[in-house]
Amino acid sequence: MTRDRTYAVIGAGALGSYYGARLSHAGCDVHFLLHSDYYHVKRHGLRIVSKKEGDFSLSNPWVYPRPEDMPRCDVALIALKTTANAALPAILPHVLAPGGVALVMQNGLAIEPDVAAIVGPERVMGALAFLCCNKLGPGDVLHIDYGNVRLGEHSAGGEPRGITPRMLAIADDFRRAGIPVELEADLVLARWKKLVWNIPYNGLAVLLDATTDRLMDDPSSRALCIALMHEVRAGAAAQGRVIEPGFVDQMVDYTDKMEPYLPSMKLDYDARREVEVEAIYGNPLRAAAAAGVSLPRIESLYHELKFLDARNRR
Amino acid sequence: MTRDRTYAVIGAGALGSYYGARLSHAGCDVHFLLHSDYYHVKRHGLRIVSKKEGDFSLSNPWVYPRPEDMPRCDVALIALKTTANAALPAILPHVLAPGGVALVMQNGLAIEPDVAAIVGPERVMGALAFLCCNKLGPGDVLHIDYGNVRLGEHSAGGEPRGITPRMLAIADDFRRAGIPVELEADLVLARWKKLVWNIPYNGLAVLLDATTDRLMDDPSSRALCIALMHEVRAGAAAQGRVIEPGFVDQMVDYTDKMEPYLPSMKLDYDARREVEVEAIYGNPLRAAAAAGVSLPRIESLYHELKFLDARNRR
Repeated sequence: MTRDRTYAVIGAGALGSYYGARLSHAGCDVHFLLHSDYYHVKRHGLRIVSKKEGDFSLSNPWVYPRPEDMPRCDVALIALKTTANAALPAILPHVLAPGGVALVMQNGLAIEPDVAAIVGPERVMGALAFLCCNKLGPGDVLHIDYGNVRLGEHSAGGEPRGITPRMLAIADDFRRAGIPVELEADLVLARWKKLVWNIPYNGLAVLLDATTDRLMDDPSSRALCIALMHEVRAGAAAQGRVIEPGFVDQMVDYTDKMEPYLPSMKLDYDARREVEVEAIYGNPLRAAAAAGVSLPRIESLYHELKFLDARNRR
Repeated sequence: MTRDRTYAVIGAGALGSYYGARLSHAGCDVHFLLHSDYYHVKRHGLRIVSKKEGDFSLSNPWVYPRPEDMPRCDVALIALKTTANAALPAILPHVLAPGGVALVMQNGLAIEPDVAAIVGPERVMGALAFLCCNKLGPGDVLHIDYGNVRLGEHSAGGEPRGITPRMLAIADDFRRAGIPVELEADLVLARWKKLVWNIPYNGLAVLLDATTDRLMDDPSSRALCIALMHEVRAGAAAQGRVIEPGFVDQMVDYTDKMEPYLPSMKLDYDARREVEVEAIYGNPLRAAAAAGVSLPRIESLYHELKFLDARNRR
């Protein structure tokens, strides 16, 4: 990897646009692969609106309608919804430079192996974004809060890979762009910890048509959120990862103090887009089942969401 | 109990009206306690419309607006929703003759102890109705299908009481009225077996806004129905009752062959009435928990329904 890393951003939703724009604004070479937004962004650029961090614009970002037209980059930031990952085999081979890495910046568990099948396991990293951000329209993103990133290495066998030089290098770019980064020696543990929040709130927001504050205020849904969080701990334990019970208390406290929030799965559902039920529910269930561990509350939610998602897109 | 038993029907929903009218039509003395329907039924009588069994009417049934006005009867048929059972202490002492029995004709588990606290445990029986019936308006009931009844004795300790003479006597009245009756030596087992159907279909119809056929056609909701049924078996086992796995297959087959159906909990929910979540979910969960058995899928559904019910009636 060269000293001046170049970035390809795959997917121009809120997350890809936000991180790509920050990196570009800080002076990195960032190349955006766009689909329906291509002509708009080519003409009008990208705009990030943020009360917390201040607004900024990129008037002339490098944008491309097809992966074949892009330069090969050191880092391909995968910022699609996981439900669109079937497009990756036709994209990644065109946009990755020799020695470049695919950085899976998506929710859920066990997405990296699919990417590894395309580019090779030694060229895959994962990142978790803790970001409240909405896309207002093509090229137009509202940053609401947070934005920190947890970064880790993928390994074919799932074992922790520790902190590597390329993690430090990418973290350096992100930090210079004002993005707080934490380095994760164990990507699988980091993914399970994020699921402690994502599994209860994404699914129940859809199932019960409720914002996070409503789910926390009602004693029954609150009890269910907590029970689901502990089941995620059991899933992590099935893969040999220890999440302390106190982490559940932290997540409860964090959500209690959060502004009323509609998780992204609920926004997708309301827009009749496919929801990320396999990445967030199906893959963790299968990982636990492979170790002989049943997660019945998560499985119930998975079946309910599968039913609703199928009907919602009919 | 005299040879000619008299009946008090408490509650003039579809179920109370239907069974009361059948018994009356067959020549039993039946006295109806009515609330909002009193003046209508006093003036226009009761009408049962049934394609399967033929229509019939009672032009001049014995109806009463207040329990104090009623004669004391041999059998008080409790046909309220369980959510209205707080009214029973003010009713039952007025309508039961010495030696008379309260017949709890309600869904769910462990409702009899509350009735026993009013009239004494030796004066309580339970009945399960397998009835598709809708109330069209005051005094006006549409019978759709079925109607058979399972009858059993309550006991303070929950142990099976076998077949008693008064079970035979009441069954005789019902059968003369054209109502098929099966006698249950073990009321608790009979209640758990009914829950094998009620727990998945009532709750999921509300949660997923779906008729039984939709729940059976989708592979995810079908798998969840079956998993919930097996959890009901585990609950029954916690109370020492064996339900064979083949009974789940029977219920699945029965539901597959059923006409598309909206369970009563869904009708209540859509009318913004309180749903019977404690009788059908809360009591079974507490019974299993008392024996150290957790039923996580049923508990999830319970919490979800509690949340929805509270919001629905706000």
